[in-house]
Amino acid sequence: MKTRKQSTKAEVQLSIKPTARPTVAALEKQLQRTWKVLDHGFVRVVDYMGDDSAIVQAARVSYGKGTKTKSKDKNLIFYLMKNGHTSPFEMCEIKLHIKLPIFVARQWIRHRTANVNEYSARYSILDAEFYLPPPESLGIQSTNNKQGRADAVTTDYATKVRDTFRGDAIHSFHSYNWLLNDDGDGHPSDLDRPSLSREIARIGLPLSTYTQMYWKIDLHNLFNFLRLRVDSHAQREIREYASSILKIVSHWVPISYSAFLEYQLHAKIFSAAQLAVISEIALGNKPTFEKSGLSKSEWNELSFLLNPKSAQDGI
Amino acid sequence: MKTRKQSTKAEVQLSIKPTARPTVAALEKQLQRTWKVLDHGFVRVVDYMGDDSAIVQAARVSYGKGTKTKSKDKNLIFYLMKNGHTSPFEMCEIKLHIKLPIFVARQWIRHRTANVNEYSARYSILDAEFYLPPPESLGIQSTNNKQGRADAVTTDYATKVRDTFRGDAIHSFHSYNWLLNDDGDGHPSDLDRPSLSREIARIGLPLSTYTQMYWKIDLHNLFNFLRLRVDSHAQREIREYASSILKIVSHWVPISYSAFLEYQLHAKIFSAAQLAVISEIALGNKPTFEKSGLSKSEWNELSFLLNPKSAQDGI
Amino acid sequence: MKTRKQSTKAEVQLSIKPTARPTVAALEKQLQRTWKVLDHGFVRVVDYMGDDSAIVQAARVSYGKGTKTKSKDKNLIFYLMKNGHTSPFEMCEIKLHIKLPIFVARQWIRHRTANVNEYSARYSILDAEFYLPPPESLGIQSTNNKQGRADAVTTDYATKVRDTFRGDAIHSFHSYNWLLNDDGDGHPSDLDRPSLSREIARIGLPLSTYTQMYWKIDLHNLFNFLRLRVDSHAQREIREYASSILKIVSHWVPISYSAFLEYQLHAKIFSAAQLAVISEIALGNKPTFEKSGLSKSEWNELSFLLNPKSAQDGI
Amino acid sequence: MKTRKQSTKAEVQLSIKPTARPTVAALEKQLQRTWKVLDHGFVRVVDYMGDDSAIVQAARVSYGKGTKTKSKDKNLIFYLMKNGHTSPFEMCEIKLHIKLPIFVARQWIRHRTANVNEYSARYSILDAEFYLPPPESLGIQSTNNKQGRADAVTTDYATKVRDTFRGDAIHSFHSYNWLLNDDGDGHPSDLDRPSLSREIARIGLPLSTYTQMYWKIDLHNLFNFLRLRVDSHAQREIREYASSILKIVSHWVPISYSAFLEYQLHAKIFSAAQLAVISEIALGNKPTFEKSGLSKSEWNELSFLLNPKSAQDGI
Repeated sequence: MKTRKQSTKAEVQLSIKPTARPTVAALEKQLQRTWKVLDHGFVRVVDYMGDDSAIVQAARVSYGKGTKTKSKDKNLIFYLMKNGHTSPFEMCEIKLHIKLPIFVARQWIRHRTANVNEYSARYSILDAEFYLPPPESLGIQSTNNKQGRADAVTTDYATKVRDTFRGDAIHSFHSYNWLLNDDGDGHPSDLDRPSLSREIARIGLPLSTYTQMYWKIDLHNLFNFLRLRVDSHAQREIREYASSILKIVSHWVPISYSAFLEYQLHAKIFSAAQLAVISEIALGNKPTFEKSGLSKSEWNELSFLLNPKSAQDGI
Repeated sequence: MKTRKQSTKAEVQLSIKPTARPTVAALEKQLQRTWKVLDHGFVRVVDYMGDDSAIVQAARVSYGKGTKTKSKDKNLIFYLMKNGHTSPFEMCEIKLHIKLPIFVARQWIRHRTANVNEYSARYSILDAEFYLPPPESLGIQSTNNKQGRADAVTTDYATKVRDTFRGDAIHSFHSYNWLLNDDGDGHPSDLDRPSLSREIARIGLPLSTYTQMYWKIDLHNLFNFLRLRVDSHAQREIREYASSILKIVSHWVPISYSAFLEYQLHAKIFSAAQLAVISEIALGNKPTFEKSGLSKSEWNELSFLLNPKSAQDGI
Repeated sequence: MKTRKQSTKAEVQLSIKPTARPTVAALEKQLQRTWKVLDHGFVRVVDYMGDDSAIVQAARVSYGKGTKTKSKDKNLIFYLMKNGHTSPFEMCEIKLHIKLPIFVARQWIRHRTANVNEYSARYSILDAEFYLPPPESLGIQSTNNKQGRADAVTTDYATKVRDTFRGDAIHSFHSYNWLLNDDGDGHPSDLDRPSLSREIARIGLPLSTYTQMYWKIDLHNLFNFLRLRVDSHAQREIREYASSILKIVSHWVPISYSAFLEYQLHAKIFSAAQLAVISEIALGNKPTFEKSGLSKSEWNELSFLLNPKSAQDGI
Repeated sequence: MKTRKQSTKAEVQLSIKPTARPTVAALEKQLQRTWKVLDHGFVRVVDYMGDDSAIVQAARVSYGKGTKTKSKDKNLIFYLMKNGHTSPFEMCEIKLHIKLPIFVARQWIRHRTANVNEYSARYSILDAEFYLPPPESLGIQSTNNKQGRADAVTTDYATKVRDTFRGDAIHSFHSYNWLLNDDGDGHPSDLDRPSLSREIARIGLPLSTYTQMYWKIDLHNLFNFLRLRVDSHAQREIREYASSILKIVSHWVPISYSAFLEYQLHAKIFSAAQLAVISEIALGNKPTFEKSGLSKSEWNELSFLLNPKSAQDGI
């Protein structure tokens, strides 16, 4: 049975043409490159629109902000990021080609403000490629973080886990192969002796199966994605994709990238009750956990203020 | 290892209270009911906002249309649907609790204009429930419709297919169970001898595994979902869910439902070239396929005009 | 010329019916009430879906969180708000009827994730109602805040300003009236001697003209709206609407409302550089503005820490 | 009082650089050009992403469709448009700079799936530019189309209308100027004798005042905008903008443009009841209005079939 199979190589576009559009030399280089992620996945920049200047240009229409020297551009972008003026960042857009396991794609697709074209297993046959976590990724169930994983399991346990995943996945793909290529009676299927439809045959494949998609999103919403998916609470696998994309962003819009780190990724929000505790400290008082009204985790977030010594020691 | 398991029964809310909001008696009854779909799935109405009158009310603000007798309400709603004035339909909202296989959920979630809370296999353990297609659903790969399935396979073939799906799924859930409840060394896991994290253990489960979600959407976007998913090109499994929801809609907003059937579901769009052919026919001419510029499928769509006899005979 | 005119009274729905849906007694009372805003505007709750429990219910599907006592519900909602788990809040929806000046509507409509039906001046005739700012709202142009207004002008100046606004608006509505009711030749228009179309006649009306709309939005996006529009940087007029809606929310979902105040409205975000300064203070060091790398405004935001005495004195 | 004024000239970017991204030579030329619309408005392409091939590329990932010859590309795009497979069209994006009257901007902004940065009259001062409809645009109120305008008024009437609009607008801008530049006491305002804030001063300006915005949208949603705004039911002024953008699209993605005309703009949808009438005609029967169950306007839509002679004569 012949059907177009899923390309495992990203097709790289190479023809160079002149354009009057804003261009970013550092990102142009990325257009030729594929970022490897996990064992078989990748991220690749297919196209982009806009640069740091496009953000400045849009902001100046909206906010009518001052003059145009280089340092002012940086000031303006930092001002926008700090004050949550997000619409100018929507004026930049990026299109990525991504290969990823289905369970990662399921988390990814929850970000609704993007455009997506995913490989369809109704029309085409999926390659026998699945994600097999490396031993160091096989963490035990975290007890203090219900959604996460803690330390890696022992080498011996890891081997058993990987053997299980590998064996089951190979078995499922074997069944998939049989369903698509056998007429149900031991003969290769053909037009006269057809096999099962693709859309049904694929339902037994594991969530670790790789899929592909084109994903297009504006910079503001990409920052939202990155803030949530670079975070330590995100599942490790999607975090690896997010980390690669974060690096791509640093090539694309270096000023906005710095502003994002400063005011979002490395910033911290304190609740009303936490601010009250901070004020107490600044007044020289010694607030206590009991009187603070904070939860244990909120209290701990202030440890670097409550016990600066330990914070300094990195404890 | 103890963790909250996925409830397989929909929890039905029963307390009756007075409200000054618009209510729909026929849909109130549905609040007590669960619509079974596929072998283990369901659709259940959890909450709703608005009714046919809410659409009329919103339209009258926007379009300032006429008076308020019953027949006028129907006329207005039909006018809105016919002319693509979609915003008044957005004034109604429905919230459903749905249990469905993951491969169906993946198609479902592509409709981005809804609110979703899906069961998370990072936090909780999935039940060992998977979709096993009934024999009559096991169609062969369609040759004229690349994405679909054609006639059902033979009983013998179907049995083999179902045995394969069943065996593989049970095997995968067995592995899942082992990964979550064994310390890797043959002992039941506990705090001192933890097992693998849930977020990793689930990656070997099949796409046929059932999940659950709350899904909330406005009526305009629900009609878009239904138009695409009741259609014969949609995968049969999601179509069964869409059909149940279509019935729910008929209880909820009967006038809008009728307008939807009349102007969308049972309507037909003709291209510029098809309209030219229709005009030819009306003029008494005999247009030919060759001169029409139509594709074969476009030409066939007009068969009821080109060869009314065959259309009448249902050929 | 007879055309349906814009109703200036909100129509209040009063019939009480039984429902199996979640109801909120405190918000039911609001359904009968109109909140006056500005000189001729209002906000009125037309319908709602869900309550604090609906958020908990959705979160438990997603995050599988624990048991069901009252204090646990509060803990869960606070946890969701603190950690940016926003999707459960999307499970609540509210529909408002709002009367507001056009320049306010223009700011309002920038929040794109809502459903809107606005009064159309193409179909219907606008009432001669416009917003005339009270003297205390007539602030001078702020010098340190390019978008804002500072202290109110003198009584004398205010009178002149109001006379100007009033005179110009009355003049524009007079022209509007002439355009719609005269045949261009001094006679009342009728079918034989028609006047100008409504869609063109209205283009000379001022931005202060009142309009009306139905506005429907989920709770998560409403919180975004409120955070931005209750803020002191928002224009005073839209702030007055936002304040009324914030009160409505306190009746509707009291726990989520408290969580919103604690973790969003009264919370504060500190940038990476600000956090470094706070750490210095906690270590007993005396950071200086020059070495901090902060902008003046960022430095000032820390004044309550840098000079706690002044903060205590309210300076 | 000095404040940056609104630029009335579109700033054209001219530096040409090499890019590895898809480029469209015909649209590159448009980057240098401003399309004049109405008396003072314009549309200008600022940036774009993707071309017809990008749509094909995305569709092939999703639908795995066939080979890559030129005619196949066209077939694929026509297939996508015909069958409502809209997501590949979302892979193209365009950014426009638009100058337009506020009453047009209010209609425009209702299309929520775009990114917008509009000139803010809170931060900056509006130019004294307003739309004055040309005599031929001054239609009387349509009697059969409640929202529209019919034939143009007489020359004499038109002159009076234009004098009224012009006089009122100049008067409003005179007030605006006084509010922003006088200290309320007859002296030019300065830091010591400030004038009214900009955000309040502008509320008396007419809806015909020109504003500017950057507007960025994907091709699928742009087609939705165009289908609704090129339509004869759209207000004439926004239609002129939509017509210019439609021409821009023909330069950008010529194949998709043709498919849009064929399957959307020049296509026609027939309701279930209309299809029944068409079938009757094809069968050689003579359906009557009374038995058809159609509304008068639905019946008239079929006139080219019911009375082909008149259709041929253009009646």
